[in-house]
Amino acid sequence: MSAWLLPDQIADVLPSEARHLEELRRTLLEAARRYGYELVIPPLLEYLESLLTGTGEALELQTFKLVDQLSGRMLGLRADTTPQVARIDAHLLNRQGVTRLCYCGPVLHTRAGGVHGTREPLQFGAEIYGHAGREAELEILELALDALGGAGLAHLQVDLGDVRVVQAVLEGCALPAARVTALHHALAAKDVATLDALTHELPRAVRDALRALPQLWGDVEVLAEAACRLPSNPALEAALDDLRWLHDRLRELETPPRVTFDLADLRGYAYYTGVRFSVLGGAQGRCEVARGGRYDAVGAAFGRQRPAVGFSLDVKSLVGLVPAAPLRAAIRAPWRHDDRALRATVAALRAQGETVVCVLPGHEHEVDEFACDRELVLRAGAWVVQPLAAP
Amino acid sequence: MSAWLLPDQIADVLPSEARHLEELRRTLLEAARRYGYELVIPPLLEYLESLLTGTGEALELQTFKLVDQLSGRMLGLRADTTPQVARIDAHLLNRQGVTRLCYCGPVLHTRAGGVHGTREPLQFGAEIYGHAGREAELEILELALDALGGAGLAHLQVDLGDVRVVQAVLEGCALPAARVTALHHALAAKDVATLDALTHELPRAVRDALRALPQLWGDVEVLAEAACRLPSNPALEAALDDLRWLHDRLRELETPPRVTFDLADLRGYAYYTGVRFSVLGGAQGRCEVARGGRYDAVGAAFGRQRPAVGFSLDVKSLVGLVPAAPLRAAIRAPWRHDDRALRATVAALRAQGETVVCVLPGHEHEVDEFACDRELVLRAGAWVVQPLAAP
Repeated sequence: MSAWLLPDQIADVLPSEARHLEELRRTLLEAARRYGYELVIPPLLEYLESLLTGTGEALELQTFKLVDQLSGRMLGLRADTTPQVARIDAHLLNRQGVTRLCYCGPVLHTRAGGVHGTREPLQFGAEIYGHAGREAELEILELALDALGGAGLAHLQVDLGDVRVVQAVLEGCALPAARVTALHHALAAKDVATLDALTHELPRAVRDALRALPQLWGDVEVLAEAACRLPSNPALEAALDDLRWLHDRLRELETPPRVTFDLADLRGYAYYTGVRFSVLGGAQGRCEVARGGRYDAVGAAFGRQRPAVGFSLDVKSLVGLVPAAPLRAAIRAPWRHDDRALRATVAALRAQGETVVCVLPGHEHEVDEFACDRELVLRAGAWVVQPLAAP
Repeated sequence: MSAWLLPDQIADVLPSEARHLEELRRTLLEAARRYGYELVIPPLLEYLESLLTGTGEALELQTFKLVDQLSGRMLGLRADTTPQVARIDAHLLNRQGVTRLCYCGPVLHTRAGGVHGTREPLQFGAEIYGHAGREAELEILELALDALGGAGLAHLQVDLGDVRVVQAVLEGCALPAARVTALHHALAAKDVATLDALTHELPRAVRDALRALPQLWGDVEVLAEAACRLPSNPALEAALDDLRWLHDRLRELETPPRVTFDLADLRGYAYYTGVRFSVLGGAQGRCEVARGGRYDAVGAAFGRQRPAVGFSLDVKSLVGLVPAAPLRAAIRAPWRHDDRALRATVAALRAQGETVVCVLPGHEHEVDEFACDRELVLRAGAWVVQPLAAP
């Protein structure tokens, strides 16, 4: 075994990609700052109970576990930052009003999402606490679209759903939690056969509604169809009304995204309690680039249930979808530590933001690894920048 | 146990400190970029052998270990980024000439360095590969001083040492590795009693030299004193000559640091092979803010021994030492999703870099969490920014 083999789905990020990742990171954090979201940096390691309280089994399976030598207790490496930010809002900040927070840092997963996925995504996200109304969803969606647009993604599409739709359909059916989870999986997979097998003892109206759900995806007409095909109740009506309102507002934006719906989709972590959304982008608009929704219950584990809406994305997944800004080429300078005028010139150029690479003695004939297009030369007693002759 | 208690020496970074940390991170990375150092992002997790090959016991004790579900093998959470960057230089880039690399990311330690230390430092560092001459040390020191100065630290001091000094004193004495390690610890602690106990069977000249070493610290006169008191040999002379040369060059800088020496100090990871240095700063100039040196052997574990010099620092430790840039206050705007003129004004202000906080309906009388000093108001049919009346 070579000492330099890396584990599967763990990779080094090399210079050109690392620079791009850093640029994207700054672009996304700046977008959040302009909306008034304050940066927080939760730790990578926490006690397992704290990381996993109220977040469901999927997140637990994704979480690396290890032993704390100081306390002898189990620690987890965070697989998702949202529960940590909910903890910060509930316990540390404990503000009465609306709180807007954002973050950007690595998370680690025991298994990657897909064949080409990474087990170390760089998670960026933004969350708004303390507002129960749908304006919070709208602001979060606007920020997500603005941030992704600023990062260079075009032709964005928002796919909306709401976990209250399935809850409304199942209202009054006392099902064990495991059965509900299995139903959610079958709905997400649009697997009608499994759906039938799981629901044979439920009332006919509920079964029909569950069979209708996997077909309720597409453009805005889906909402009218859902109102016809699903049994009417106040929770369903509230969910459909919120989805239509969000659709209308999103279509009014300066650069309106395509807005689609998928009322059977419950993908993502188990903590969503209302509207959930995906943002799709990339060349064919087929890549899910961000995901979010409302999760009013996450803070409850930390003693303070607050309305909460947020989104998150993997910055690494954006690197392949948008072009990097071209690198500003550097200036090559000779190495002469005893030439004060040269040193002052190099320092002045660096202070202006230029990259100046000093060629170490003996390396004058090496190829520049940092692309240089100019060089510092001595002309009539003064150090001046001139274009570099092509090699 | 509350679900929100964090493990000892693990902490959340809350908004004002997080913003400062992010600013420092950008300042340091920009400094490295201006010197031509390319960013790399090694993974947080690697196979344990790869992380720990050739790095010594101290790093192994600091490394959290866990099991990879995919391979069944042991993984380590990086406790230091330098061995990873050496691996990238040796294996992935495999360039012939000089390679300059930098990085900034979290590392995790099983135990913190001091009572007030963190187990999750944010490690920033820069490394230069492929140049055996002392110019590499000088460039790395200049970059470290420039980066720390740019971050706001003044009155910096460079403390120099060289592991070749102790090696030269012990030359010809065949000592077991454990004894050498114990000697190094006793020297670093200037613990003469232990030093005596460890060396009673060594020749008199070696014992005298070892006893002299803990006194060889202070200003540049230390170098002349060392030449007198230590037995002369070519390795020692080369080390002392390099130290004097670095002293002279550092004192010629535009903002010369104070330069001191400590010839017995061998602190830090076991991989240093030549000059090592600390940079001290902070209020009384007593905090070690960066550490580095030459470690020509680290790449050997990855099949390619290359000259290497670098430094690293914990960005979190700087937060308390330098003041943050004042936050540019935000603009408060009312929430009216149906007012296109308002929305366009908000978007335009954000595009200019302003922070605009839209007050969600029902929250008009809350205290702003994001400090606002201006507000958007409708005047004669146009949305204009005006100063916010003091509350």
